[in-house]
Parts: sequence; C-alpha cells; structure tokens
Amino acid sequence: MATVEELKLRIRELENELIKSKQKQSDAEHHLRPKIDKMSAEVVDSNPYSRLMALKRMGIVQDYELLLFDYDKVELANMNRLFFQPHQAGLSKVEAAEHTLRNINPDVAFETHNYNITTMDNFTHFMNRISHGGLEEGKPVDLVLSCVDNFEARMAINTACNELGQIWMESGVSENAVSGHIQLIIPGETACFACAPPLVVAANIDEKTLKRDGVCAASLPTTMGVVAGLLVQNVLKYLLGFGTVSYYLGYNAMQDFFPSMAMKANPQCDDRHCRRQQDEYKKKEVERPKQEVVQEEEEVVHEDNEWGIELVSEVSEAELQDASGPVPDLPEGITVAYTIPEKDGASGETVEETDQSLEELMAQMRKM
Amino acid sequence: MATVEELKLRIRELENELIKSKQKQSDAEHHLRPKIDKMSAEVVDSNPYSRLMALKRMGIVQDYELLLFDYDKVELANMNRLFFQPHQAGLSKVEAAEHTLRNINPDVAFETHNYNITTMDNFTHFMNRISHGGLEEGKPVDLVLSCVDNFEARMAINTACNELGQIWMESGVSENAVSGHIQLIIPGETACFACAPPLVVAANIDEKTLKRDGVCAASLPTTMGVVAGLLVQNVLKYLLGFGTVSYYLGYNAMQDFFPSMAMKANPQCDDRHCRRQQDEYKKKEVERPKQEVVQEEEEVVHEDNEWGIELVSEVSEAELQDASGPVPDLPEGITVAYTIPEKDGASGETVEETDQSLEELMAQMRKM
Repeated sequence: MATVEELKLRIRELENELIKSKQKQSDAEHHLRPKIDKMSAEVVDSNPYSRLMALKRMGIVQDYELLLFDYDKVELANMNRLFFQPHQAGLSKVEAAEHTLRNINPDVAFETHNYNITTMDNFTHFMNRISHGGLEEGKPVDLVLSCVDNFEARMAINTACNELGQIWMESGVSENAVSGHIQLIIPGETACFACAPPLVVAANIDEKTLKRDGVCAASLPTTMGVVAGLLVQNVLKYLLGFGTVSYYLGYNAMQDFFPSMAMKANPQCDDRHCRRQQDEYKKKEVERPKQEVVQEEEEVVHEDNEWGIELVSEVSEAELQDASGPVPDLPEGITVAYTIPEKDGASGETVEETDQSLEELMAQMRKM
Repeated sequence: MATVEELKLRIRELENELIKSKQKQSDAEHHLRPKIDKMSAEVVDSNPYSRLMALKRMGIVQDYELLLFDYDKVELANMNRLFFQPHQAGLSKVEAAEHTLRNINPDVAFETHNYNITTMDNFTHFMNRISHGGLEEGKPVDLVLSCVDNFEARMAINTACNELGQIWMESGVSENAVSGHIQLIIPGETACFACAPPLVVAANIDEKTLKRDGVCAASLPTTMGVVAGLLVQNVLKYLLGFGTVSYYLGYNAMQDFFPSMAMKANPQCDDRHCRRQQDEYKKKEVERPKQEVVQEEEEVVHEDNEWGIELVSEVSEAELQDASGPVPDLPEGITVAYTIPEKDGASGETVEETDQSLEELMAQMRKM
C-alpha cells in the first residue's frame, strides 16, 4: 500500500502534467487576437488591417457579415484546395468555414445554414434570409454569391434572385477542371441563368442520370483558386466601386484565354419573374430623362476611375507617366508596364459592354 | 491533514482530467491521416487523392518534394491571405508553411531554409540546393518559382538560374495591388530578368531609398490569389505537359485584362551567364537537323494536345460536339461554351509565341 508521501508525490506529478497539457491545448487560443473596435491604419506588421488600410481610398467595407449556406460535410477528398484541414473532416462545411474564418478575423459576423437550399422549406428560408439578412436590420443582403457544383442549386438561386430582384454573381468550374467562369446577374437587365441555360437545363434532363457511377469529377485547386480569386475581385470592385465590374468573364486554363462579354436579359425567358423584372427595368429606363440615360449606363459598368489608390510605387510618378505613354527616350533594354489597348473595335475575342441582344450574340457564336 | 482516501480521490480526479486534456490536445493529430504508399484512384470521399486521380491522364507527379526559402516571419498583417493562421504569428514563414502543408499531405517531402538568399553565403547555399536538391539524389530541381516582393531577391534568383541554366518562373503583384504577372524564363532562350529589367533596376537605383517611411504596400488577397493560381497552373502545365505554357501572362484587375506575350533573350543583356546561355542555345539550334527544328519549337510551347483528360461532363459527348462546333439546330435560348477564336493574326492585344526580338516588341509597345 502506498504511503501518504508517495500519494502526494503522484498528485504533484499529475498536477504538473495537467498544467503542461492544458498549456499545449490552449496554445492556439492564446494566439487568437481579440476583437477590435476600430480598424487602424497604423503601419506595423502586428496590425491585421495594415495591408487593407493601405487601400483605404478604394473604400473600406466598414461592417462585414457573412451568410453561408451549404449542406455538405468536409471530406478528406476536399484537402486538395487548402481551405479545409484534415482535422475538420466530418464537420459540416459551413461550420468548418466559420471556425477557420472566425479564427482569422473575429471581427466578422457569421450566420450559417447547414441545409440544402433546393428543398421547399429550406428554399423559403433561404429567400427570407436574402431579403432580410442584411447588416441593416431587416434589409436585403448586398450581394448573393453562387459557388455551387450543380445546376439544380444554381436554378434555385436564380429563381430566388429573380423573384426578389436581388443582384447576384454566379461562378463555376467545368467538370474537366480546366475552365471556369464568373457572371454578374442584375435581374431584368442582364441575362439570368434561365435566359441562357446550358444544354442540360434547356433539354430538361435530370442531371443525376448523367453522372456515371464510380466516376469522380476532376478538381484542380489551381483552376478553382483562379476562378474564386476572379469572383471575389469582382465582388470587391462591385461593392467598393473601383475598376470595371465584369458581366461575364471566362477562364480557359489550357490556353490562358479569358473571354469577356455581356448578355442582355432574354424577353422569352422561361422565368416569369425574370420577365417581370425586365418590364420594370424597361419602365424605369423610359421614365428616366434622356440625357441621364447615357450617364446611367456608365454607372452600371462602374467605369468611374476616381478610385485613386495611394500608389506606393518603386518608381517615381514621372517615371510611371513615361512608362504608360509612348517611351521614345528610355535607354535600350528597358521594358514598360503593359497598358490597355485602344478600343478600336478590333478587340478580337473580347466582347465588352455590348448592346447586342442574346439572339445576336448567339448568332455570332454560331459563326465562330 | 488529508486522509489517504482523500488523496486517492484527488489522484483519480487528476487522472481523469489529464486524460480529457490529452484527448482534446491530440484531437487534431487523431484526424491526421497516415502516409500512404500508393495513390489510389478509388472514388470515395475519404480518399484524399480521388479528385486528383480523376485527372490521371494529364499525368500525375509520382513524387512530390518542396524546397522552401524565405527569411520572413509570420505577422498578423499576413492574415488577409488565408494561408497563415493567427496562432502561427511569430513562426518563420517556411516553418509555418511546412507545418500547414505537412498536416494536409504527409506524403510530401519538405526541405526548408529560413534565410535571406541575397547574402553571399546564403546565395552560395541556395545555388547548391537548386543544383543538387532534386528528387533524384544530387540532380537539379525541376523548376524554381520566384514569389518575392523585391527586385534584389528577383535578381539573386535570376543570377543563380542564368549561371546554372535552370528554368524558372517569376511572379509578382504591383505595389498598388491591382495588377500582377507570371513569366517563364528559359535561360538563353527567353528574356531573363536582366534582359528586360524594370526601370528601378536599369537605372541602378537602390530600391530601399524609394520606400516611404510609414507607408505600407497595399495587398489584395484577390489579386495575390489569382496570380498564385495562374502561376501554379502554369507550373502544372509545364511539369505534367498539358495545355499551352504561358511565357508571360499579365493580370490587370481593374479591367480584367490578361495580356500575354513572349520575349526572346536580349543579346546585350548585362548578365554574362545569360549571354553564355544564349550562345549555347544558338549552337544547339544550329546543330539540330532542320526538319526537327519545327518539331522542337512545338515541344517548347507544350502545344501537345494529347493530354486527354477523362471528361465527366453532364452532357453527352454528342451534345458537347454540338456545343463546340456551329450549332444551327439548338432550341432558342441555348448558349454554347466559349471556344478559342481562330488564330487569324487579328488577335488584338494578345501576342502569342512571337519570334520577334525584344527590340521589335519594344517598338510595337511604343506605338500603342
């Protein structure tokens, strides 16, 4: 039988071990930063907003909120995309995403919904959160992003946004993993997903019957990373009002080819809410004084160039001026930064800000 | 004084607490997957390689190895890029990166060097690891990637690769965070970093004198994400031999404009090793039988299209055929996937696989 002294020694050992274990366990939490009241522009590396605040003239979104909808679970097969980590396998994707993002930035507010938006009840709830889940209590959200891998879910988002007149951005990667696209949809104004549906939707085929058993869709993290980057860049441009917001931007990874275009809504669209939005848009256009129409069109494409980023260039402004114009006096061997070519109508494959109808564009594409 | 029974009770409590604490602490480790001997193509979500193996006809890199060089430490200001996490603040970037990547894929071998490559001793060691750090013992690495934020480091990589004849890819994001580029450099063949240096290098200005105190370079994770995605996509295309490898691909985020071009090495390059590589390349070109030269040129740009990805499309092959050719019989409202336009010389801003010299390209750019 153990003596009292032996028992006391064992207690001390256990207490020390427990302290060490708890220390290790909470190590990560010790490094978590507390919430902050006001974003600082101080140029120190310990300021998590220093890189962002250097862009402050572009406009900083003061309040951040993220509503996430997904019914999937994290699997080991998802690890090739870097965002989810192996210890999160089995968690719902929205839960894992919230955990990771909150860990990085505790100042962001989250609302997660772990359900399939295509079932009747969930769809109603989904519409409700779009209409009333904005930062301003009870107001609609600023933008809906579609990052799904099937047409059924896309059509659900399309239906909801058409009914609500909610602006949204669609994104996707092809099943062979070497191309993708992003698209801005303004109900009534630009083509919705039902205005120009892919073959599988127009032919009313049940896509589940097309999936082959035991065949896995390919996935390249590079293609997904590029498309996700282009999507969120477009979101920032749209929300903060800098640069030209793309209506449609494709990415062909095999050839590094990036077609861009704009498509008007289709007056024969199957979605009655899309047609209703088109009527309302037309009415607004007619009511608008004629001179302002031109201005308005410019506003839509966000061509306002007064974004004025604070340029911290490694060359002087004068040197930059030289580099972007004709450069006759530069010493041999000096290159210039590339500039946007003149818009002379001979822009080849890039169709920007067209006023053509969907039918005209389709006819063009058939000729290619 | 405590009785023996009380002491024993305390021991049981502590033992239970310790077990719980250790359980929590090692939770993450429990979810870590073990190393695997052979990549499986089995289509189950628990197979971490299922998505990758769906691309197996593109060629799978059998052995992975990563050599990382960086002298920086993880700061809270880096959190806007998602890769590093707050609990890693204070770690060296190579250490944090290795930890995260090993956690995701324990099958990858790592070699990390936490030093500045531009100092004399480190530079020698850096060159040595490029020459002998390949997977095959003592052989050179397959490719060097430059992901640095200053010209001094770029010039160090350029110097090393010119001397060793090592193929590398350069990448960068502008200081105003709204543009970036990637570039493939084949010593002696395409323009190196000294062949067409930016103004600051050509004018021999010390870039440190250009940085303004208290001014932080802006950083948009979107621009960085797109450029990183394009870089690694180009790496995959180069290493696995699919698609067209880009020589130079720019990204203008403001306008979603992606200029591409190719530049020959500059015979007047300041780097003597570049000029030596040019001489060697010319000799090889001359020695090559004339008929084979054409073939060889095609190989260089990896235009081989026999990559044959297993296409798991949601439409049938016949439907795809319809979609990529002229589509006269499709019902109204159906769109087609975009295709690469005919190369008819009127490709606008996109200059691909040119045989023009640097001087000719410069003259062209001046005219723009």
